Amino acid sequence: MPPVENTAVADLLGVLAYAELTAFDRLAEDARMAPSLTGRAALARMAAAEIGHHFRLTARLEELGVDPSAAMEPFVSALDTFHESTRPSTWLEGLVKAYVGDGLAADFYREIAGFLPEPDRGLVLDVLADTGYADFAVREVRAAIAADRSVAGRLALWGRRLVGEAMTRSQAVIAEHDPLAELIISGTGDLSGVGRLIERITQAHTARMKALGLNP
Amino acid sequence: MPPVENTAVADLLGVLAYAELTAFDRLAEDARMAPSLTGRAALARMAAAEIGHHFRLTARLEELGVDPSAAMEPFVSALDTFHESTRPSTWLEGLVKAYVGDGLAADFYREIAGFLPEPDRGLVLDVLADTGYADFAVREVRAAIAADRSVAGRLALWGRRLVGEAMTRSQAVIAEHDPLAELIISGTGDLSGVGRLIERITQAHTARMKALGLNP
Repeated sequence: MPPVENTAVADLLGVLAYAELTAFDRLAEDARMAPSLTGRAALARMAAAEIGHHFRLTARLEELGVDPSAAMEPFVSALDTFHESTRPSTWLEGLVKAYVGDGLAADFYREIAGFLPEPDRGLVLDVLADTGYADFAVREVRAAIAADRSVAGRLALWGRRLVGEAMTRSQAVIAEHDPLAELIISGTGDLSGVGRLIERITQAHTARMKALGLNP
Repeated sequence: MPPVENTAVADLLGVLAYAELTAFDRLAEDARMAPSLTGRAALARMAAAEIGHHFRLTARLEELGVDPSAAMEPFVSALDTFHESTRPSTWLEGLVKAYVGDGLAADFYREIAGFLPEPDRGLVLDVLADTGYADFAVREVRAAIAADRSVAGRLALWGRRLVGEAMTRSQAVIAEHDPLAELIISGTGDLSGVGRLIERITQAHTARMKALGLNP
């Protein structure tokens, strides 16, 4: 049996590679809801950055002798279900989903990456680096709220729904992937370490909601 | 009044910048119809390349003191109408549209670019350079026809419909943009020069249909 880290690395790179592919999809789709050609092009450019990340991850998987499609496959259904159940119906919902939802996911992946050896730790942190989306989303959402206060309540509800769905889905994914679960337990030390990890992620989420001007 | 070339340059860069934005959209949409994760990622990567081109064109427009959105705006409706009326319903139709349709458009833009001074001629030729799509499309379509001969007839009809629509739309666009029309007439020399231009474009189109294994 290969050491836990190796299988966990393939799991983490696989789920991230597929996450980047779906991020591309969603940003490309959201781009079409943009109120201006400039906004549309800005989102398309961010989508393009995600695809660059996707190929860095699949290149690393190939280097490790892992077939990228096989590494992504186990996560396709969970991620697709999450996105189907949280499909934005407006430009602003799309922005909040990408900023709040992807932000939460990125925090979680970053925590796990911290338990990995190099070069995989660096690679994961690198592809999770912000592509300029955060500033863009915060600016657009705050401007929309300034123009119409009633927007804030609806978007706050939407943000809370996103977190709920994300938490449910990610617990299911971890439960099905023993190497990932073992890595998290051994990396954090014990269950109270897992508790602190979740607390860090929750605090960062609260900060992002506030940055948008939304009640967490 | 500015010399014909200047307005024609803004027109050409504007229509191309918007064409790249729609190319991104369509490739991203077609990627979702891909039969495999590898095909989906390959198409997403090509979409990303188009956005890179888009930003090179808008940067040049800004350099010329032209607002990119203003330069694109006059072409939005014509291009959107073309794409709405030729929306692929299968993965193979998408491939044929991108290879045959975009190939035809690229030939046409290249002919016009030949009449422009540098650096715009070089820029246009550069962003129109193949992004690896041609080989990919030819391989996929030929493989599909080899597996099921009946596919060829339907796709050939689809290819002919694309050209018909493209010709109708582009004539309408040129008729509405005097600087473009004047540049084409003065560039080709006279009406028989325009005739030869159309003949060159038609021949290249025929070659592409044959490369796919389709009756032109």
